[in-house]
Amino acid sequence: ALNGDAKTMNFLQEVVDIMLAYIVESFDRSTKVIDFHYPNELLQRNNWELSDEPETLDDILISCRATFTYEVAPVFVLLEYVTLKKMREIIGWQDGRGDGIFSPGGAISNMYAMLLARYKMFPEVKEKGMSSVPRLVAFTSEHSHFSIKKGAAALGIGTESVICIKADERGKMIPSDLERRIIEAKQKGYVPFFVSATAGTTVYGAFDPLMAIADICKKHDIWMHVDGAWGGSLLMSRKHRWKLNGVERANSMTWNPHKMMAVPLQCSALLVREEGLMQSCNQMQACYLFQQDKQYDLSYDTGDKALQCGRHVDIFKLWLMWRAKGTIGFEAQIDKCLELSEYLYNKIKDREGYEMVFDGKPQHTNVCFWYLPPGVRYLEDKVEKMKRLHKVAPVIKARMMEYGTTMVSYQPQGDKVNFFRMVISNPAATFEDIDFLIEEIERLGQDL
Amino acid sequence: ALNGDAKTMNFLQEVVDIMLAYIVESFDRSTKVIDFHYPNELLQRNNWELSDEPETLDDILISCRATFTYEVAPVFVLLEYVTLKKMREIIGWQDGRGDGIFSPGGAISNMYAMLLARYKMFPEVKEKGMSSVPRLVAFTSEHSHFSIKKGAAALGIGTESVICIKADERGKMIPSDLERRIIEAKQKGYVPFFVSATAGTTVYGAFDPLMAIADICKKHDIWMHVDGAWGGSLLMSRKHRWKLNGVERANSMTWNPHKMMAVPLQCSALLVREEGLMQSCNQMQACYLFQQDKQYDLSYDTGDKALQCGRHVDIFKLWLMWRAKGTIGFEAQIDKCLELSEYLYNKIKDREGYEMVFDGKPQHTNVCFWYLPPGVRYLEDKVEKMKRLHKVAPVIKARMMEYGTTMVSYQPQGDKVNFFRMVISNPAATFEDIDFLIEEIERLGQDL
Ligand SMILES: Cc1ncc(COP(=O)(O)O)c(C=O)c1O
Ligand SMILES: Cc1ncc(COP(=O)(O)O)c(C=O)c1O
Repeated sequence: ALNGDAKTMNFLQEVVDIMLAYIVESFDRSTKVIDFHYPNELLQRNNWELSDEPETLDDILISCRATFTYEVAPVFVLLEYVTLKKMREIIGWQDGRGDGIFSPGGAISNMYAMLLARYKMFPEVKEKGMSSVPRLVAFTSEHSHFSIKKGAAALGIGTESVICIKADERGKMIPSDLERRIIEAKQKGYVPFFVSATAGTTVYGAFDPLMAIADICKKHDIWMHVDGAWGGSLLMSRKHRWKLNGVERANSMTWNPHKMMAVPLQCSALLVREEGLMQSCNQMQACYLFQQDKQYDLSYDTGDKALQCGRHVDIFKLWLMWRAKGTIGFEAQIDKCLELSEYLYNKIKDREGYEMVFDGKPQHTNVCFWYLPPGVRYLEDKVEKMKRLHKVAPVIKARMMEYGTTMVSYQPQGDKVNFFRMVISNPAATFEDIDFLIEEIERLGQDL
Repeated sequence: ALNGDAKTMNFLQEVVDIMLAYIVESFDRSTKVIDFHYPNELLQRNNWELSDEPETLDDILISCRATFTYEVAPVFVLLEYVTLKKMREIIGWQDGRGDGIFSPGGAISNMYAMLLARYKMFPEVKEKGMSSVPRLVAFTSEHSHFSIKKGAAALGIGTESVICIKADERGKMIPSDLERRIIEAKQKGYVPFFVSATAGTTVYGAFDPLMAIADICKKHDIWMHVDGAWGGSLLMSRKHRWKLNGVERANSMTWNPHKMMAVPLQCSALLVREEGLMQSCNQMQACYLFQQDKQYDLSYDTGDKALQCGRHVDIFKLWLMWRAKGTIGFEAQIDKCLELSEYLYNKIKDREGYEMVFDGKPQHTNVCFWYLPPGVRYLEDKVEKMKRLHKVAPVIKARMMEYGTTMVSYQPQGDKVNFFRMVISNPAATFEDIDFLIEEIERLGQDL
C-alpha cells in the first residue's frame, strides 16, 4: 500500500463497505441469526492457507466477505489453527506439530510458558498449590524483560526465585554462568524448572545463544522457553533467522506479531512443542461451558486451554496481513528495518559527539547510543561528565515531543547513564528519516 | 441508532472518514509525529466527563476527532481514569476514590483480585513465593465462574484451596455455610484470605447476598471480592441495583462492560477500593520502561500496575458509547433486557410442556428451563424420562443452528440434566422475538 493513493483508499473503502453491509444485514430480521458451519467444513470450503507469495487485493476482499459470513467464533478458531501451525513450521518443529494460543500480549505469553513448565514437572501443583512442591527456581538473563519476574510473582514462585544470569557486554546471556547457577541452585536443594532465553532483548536487541542454552537445558532436564516477543519475527527472514538457531529445540516460544510484524496491538502467540499440555494444565471442568455432547469436532474447542474465558479476536488482522503480504512480504519489511538500523549504526559509530553503548553491529533494530553535546563532550571530570550526560537524552526527548518532529526513547541500564535507544519497526521509514533524526538530535541538543 | 437508517449510516460513514483521514495524514511527512499534551492539560482542554444524559451525534464526532488528534496513549489513559472513577462512584465508594484497571476479560480481572488479596495479607509473597506463607484458602459458591479456580491454579494456590460454598436452590451463596467453612478452615490451621461473591452467576444469573457476606468478611478480616462480570452492570439501573446492595463494602469488583452493556469484546474492569495496592503488588522496577525522570505527572503512568506490558485500547469504545447513550441510555438497555426475560419467564412458567429449573422470577436475564416434548412429557419411568430429556436440548439447538433461525445455549448443572439457558443481552430484541423462540423450540422439538 502506497501513500494514501487511490488504489489503497478504494480498497479501504471497500472493506468499510463490507463491514457496513454486515451491520445493515444484522438489522434485517429475515436473515439467519447464524450461518453455522463446522470448522472442518470451513476448512474445505475455502482456501485459508498462508503462503510465501501475497494474494491480490481482490482475494483479500473475498476473504473479508467470507469471514463475516460465517459464524464468528468457528472461523476465527480455524484461522488461529492455520496460523499457529504455520508459525510452528517456521520455528522448525516437525510438521508444525505442537500447540499454542493467542494471548493478550507477550507478558501473558511468558506467564503461560512458566505455568506450563511448572505443570509439566509437578502436575500436582494445579490442585495442591506451591506448598506441595520443593522450592522451584527459574533462570533468565539480567537483560530479560521484566515480565518474567512479574510472572514469577503472580504464579506464587516469587521474584527471588528468578535467578538473573549474567549477560556479556552485548547483552547476551553467558551460558557458562547459566550452568554454574543451575548447579549452585541444585546444591542448595532447589529445583530448576524453567530457563527463559531472550531472542531480541528489549533494550539492546540481543539474541541469547540458544544452541548452548538448549544443551544445558537438555543436560539438566529443564524447560527451555524462548522469549521472542521482540526478536521472534526474524525467523521470517532468510537473512537473519540464523540469530535464532536452536529455537527448534525450545519447549515453548513467545512471538509477538504486534511488534516487528507491525500487526496492530494486541497480537501475541505462545507456541508450545508438546501437544495436550495446555489443555490439561488449564482446563477446569466447567460443564456448563464446554459441553462434551457438542455436535462438532472438539479439537477446535480452544477455550479450555486458556486462562481467559472470552477472548478478543486478535487473529484476523494477522491472518489477513499474512494473506496480503505473503511470508515474503513480512520478510521484506523485516529486512528493511534491519537495513535502516544498520544505516543508523554506520552513520554514528564514528561520528563526532556520538558513542555507542555496546560495540559491533546491532543484531536487531535497536541502536543504543549517547549523544554528547559540545558542552559535555570535552569535560575532564568523569563524574561531572556522566552527571551531565545523564540529563541530555531526557531534555532532547522532551524538546522533540514539544516540536512533534520525531520520537526516540531513552533509558539508563545498570551503571550506564541515560542513552538513546532508537528502535525501528516501521518499514515505511527511509534513510532520509534517519538522517533527519540525527540532525534533530544535534539541533535540539547542541546547547546542552 | 435505528435499523440501518440514513442517519445512522451517515454517522458511521463520518466516523470512517475521520479514520481514513487519520490514515492519510499519517502518510504526510510534513505533519507532526506526535501532538503531545500532558494528561492534565488534556483534562482541561476538552470535556471528557461521562454524564447521565447522552451527547449528540455531532459531539461524538468531535470526540472522535479529538481522540485521534492527541498522542495515542495519554488520551486513552485519561479516558480510563475518567471512566474507572465514574464506575467507582456508581459502586458507591466515597468520591469515586480507589484504583482499577481495564484487563483482557473477567477471568483475568478475577485473577488480579485474588493476587491483590494475597499481596495485601502477605506482601512477602511477591519476593519469596507461596512457600513463605501458611496455607491460604479462598471461598466461592458452587455456582461461581470457573475462572476463580483457574486463577487459584495459576497463582500457585491450588484448586483444592478454593472451598466451594453451598448455594440455595436459586443459586445464591448460603452465608451460614460460608461462615461455617471459614471457621472450619481456621481450625485446620489454614488462612482464609479471599471470598469471591458472585453478582450474577453464569448459569442462573443469581446474586449472592452481599450484605451478609460483607459482614462475615469483616468479622473474619478477609478480602471481599465481587465477581460482577455478568451482573455488575445492573448497578446502572435504578430499578435493579438493589440486587447488589453491599457491593460498596467489597474490596474489589469485576465488572464487564463487554457483557450486559453490549460493548464489543474485550472490555472488563477490575475496580479496587484501596489506592496504591495494585502498584506495589505488580510493579517490577524495570528502569528502562518507566523512567522516573519523565517530564509529566506520573500518576497517569498506569503501566506498572498491570501484569501486562503493552495493552490493547479497550477503553475508547466504552467511553464513546457512554458519551453517546449517557448513563440513562445504558440503564434503559439493561431495564429492557430484564423486562424481556421477565416476559419469557411469565410466558413459560405455567405453559404446558415447560418446567423451570428454579422457582421464582429470574434476577438477571438468565431464564433456565426444560422443554419436554410430548413424547417425553408423559413418561412414567423417571430414570428413562431424565435420560430422554437430557438429549432434547442438544438436538433442538443443533437444529436451530442448521436453520439459523435462533440460538439458545443449554447445559447440565449438578444433578440436573441438560436445560436451556436463555440469556438476553441485546436490547434490540422484542417481545415478538421471544414468542418466536418458543414457537421454534416447539416446532423443532415436538417430534422428540
Ligand atoms: C523481550 C520482550 N518480552 C516481552 C515483552 C512484553 O510484550 P507485551 O508488551 O506484548 O506484553 C516485551 C515488550 O517490550 C519484550 O521486549
Ligand atoms: C460470573 C462470571 N465471571 C467471570 C466471567 C469471565 O468473563 P470473561 O469471559 O470476560 O473472561 C464470566 C463469563 O461468562 C462470568 O459469567
